[in-house]
Amino acid sequence: MAVNQMTGKQSIEFQDAPYIISSASVVGPKEGEGPLGEWFDLVSPQAEFGEKTWEEAESTMQKEALQTAIGKAKLMEIQIRCLFGGDLLAQSIATSFGNGESNIPLFGLYGACSTCGESLALAAMTVAGGYADYAAALTSSHFASAEKEFRFPLGYGNQRPLSASWTVTGSGAFILSDRGGHVRVSGVTPGKIVDMGIKDNMNMGACMAPAACDTIYQNLMDFNRQPQDYDRIITGDLGAVGQRILIDLLKEKGFDISEQHMDCGIEIYDADSQDTHAGGSGCGCAAVVLAAMILPRLRKGSWKRVLFVPTGALLSKVSFNEGRTIPGIAHAVVLEHA
Amino acid sequence: MAVNQMTGKQSIEFQDAPYIISSASVVGPKEGEGPLGEWFDLVSPQAEFGEKTWEEAESTMQKEALQTAIGKAKLMEIQIRCLFGGDLLAQSIATSFGNGESNIPLFGLYGACSTCGESLALAAMTVAGGYADYAAALTSSHFASAEKEFRFPLGYGNQRPLSASWTVTGSGAFILSDRGGHVRVSGVTPGKIVDMGIKDNMNMGACMAPAACDTIYQNLMDFNRQPQDYDRIITGDLGAVGQRILIDLLKEKGFDISEQHMDCGIEIYDADSQDTHAGGSGCGCAAVVLAAMILPRLRKGSWKRVLFVPTGALLSKVSFNEGRTIPGIAHAVVLEHA
Repeated sequence: MAVNQMTGKQSIEFQDAPYIISSASVVGPKEGEGPLGEWFDLVSPQAEFGEKTWEEAESTMQKEALQTAIGKAKLMEIQIRCLFGGDLLAQSIATSFGNGESNIPLFGLYGACSTCGESLALAAMTVAGGYADYAAALTSSHFASAEKEFRFPLGYGNQRPLSASWTVTGSGAFILSDRGGHVRVSGVTPGKIVDMGIKDNMNMGACMAPAACDTIYQNLMDFNRQPQDYDRIITGDLGAVGQRILIDLLKEKGFDISEQHMDCGIEIYDADSQDTHAGGSGCGCAAVVLAAMILPRLRKGSWKRVLFVPTGALLSKVSFNEGRTIPGIAHAVVLEHA
Repeated sequence: MAVNQMTGKQSIEFQDAPYIISSASVVGPKEGEGPLGEWFDLVSPQAEFGEKTWEEAESTMQKEALQTAIGKAKLMEIQIRCLFGGDLLAQSIATSFGNGESNIPLFGLYGACSTCGESLALAAMTVAGGYADYAAALTSSHFASAEKEFRFPLGYGNQRPLSASWTVTGSGAFILSDRGGHVRVSGVTPGKIVDMGIKDNMNMGACMAPAACDTIYQNLMDFNRQPQDYDRIITGDLGAVGQRILIDLLKEKGFDISEQHMDCGIEIYDADSQDTHAGGSGCGCAAVVLAAMILPRLRKGSWKRVLFVPTGALLSKVSFNEGRTIPGIAHAVVLEHA
């Protein structure tokens, strides 16, 4: 049994840190052509994933990712005690329909693109609390379903400003357990909503950077760490614009993370050749980069400790059309080589 | 510290069961005129709650409910370690904007109308796991924002069939802790998605009843109980149609719950005079009935043990318009007088 220490104000440190024993990434063709292409478990040759609608395509990605992660862990579905899952669509339908045939109890989550961090945090808390031998975390996004959900129909051929990000077509799944594996979740810092009054749905990086700053600052304070105590501090999908804002905001608070900072949205596409502007985004972005790029390095031990901080912009078309702001939220997970 | 037993297949039994130390309910005028009217903490004289949009009205209800529950627990907001919150709107905007000014770390949830059960389950797991002295659970729904989100604009004056339910305008908040109070959460049974292929968004009771059956059956098996081991088995918002289906389905599985069954959606309105057809529904329905009617009886000890089962229909207008089914999910929470 874990005896869990409540650090400072906002973080949790696991005394018996759970393991990420397996992970899987499923992506679309554009992501497969990007710099991380060869590291994904499954690259679909077409973005429809054999389905008739974009939403069903996203559900299919979730199904494939979860089954692959369960298979890589050499488990049967029935051994997974519960699933923490979410996506960006209204009423999380990619998750509902993606897991309708599974027999795993589902805790549905919504934290916009931060949901990958939220799902890992809750799965880790569930395992470390003694509630589950095995718990799963699963998130997804799809470029076409997200553009339809949040902005303009693709058929409009709408112009995108350089601050816009490109929603990643991808799904990542993770199996957590109290035994096995070489990566542990040693702590979590659940995030608060931070709203700086930004209203531009074509500049999500700016909306989310203040929340990332708040969560990273709180993590460093709660664990009494400096940025160099992490090999990398990796945000989910701030992109090039959000990255600059985050580094500036944290400098004002006394921390320089410019050496350690990386962003999944910047890593996943080639900015010069793939025309993705500020970078990748979405619930699937952080998840597939974690599975394909971050966890392998932690497993090998080339990175010893990483702060993984998926970032979310709490936007809806209704709130946007009603002139509301776009608040941000970021959930941090401390990952360590074991 | 809790040492938590994983019962049978799907449920969790807390050895150190957390307490619901305080609760609050905020409702609109129609709910205030119903049979439970005098028991709600706050009844607004108008459904707008002083705001300009239905979504902001819903956010305001959440704010009021949470602040009232915190106040009734004689706590300050800063003492609440985390909040599990959700609503029915796309991207959960009632929750995002309702809690944007608060400083409590937020785990956003989506489980349709089952979210009240999901939030209580996760808050209980968080407290019993030693992660929080105090955790909050908060859900809401609003008749007007929900009709806009899921069905027809109110201005159409659309006809409603008798199987349709009426989304409750209300928000319920709960503070859980490892100390104090007279109601304990002794166990939880997180639910699985159950999809019987029903597609009628004017008959949510029929969509959800199979999921309620699955979760209640699993709870009885996991805890080795009979229906009479509960003073009441209370579903969230099956309404009159769903209630009949649930009782029939469970009879087929060998359990007769007709003596114990109650439904929050049936309790909240007067079917004869309030023209709400099958009954109340929504994330707020189960929450405000729990706060106003169920918890007071458990506190007094007139009920010793109740199985509380909020039920959700995993519907979206996109999936509905694409001809998809409406899967259901139900999360059960065992509440006991202490």
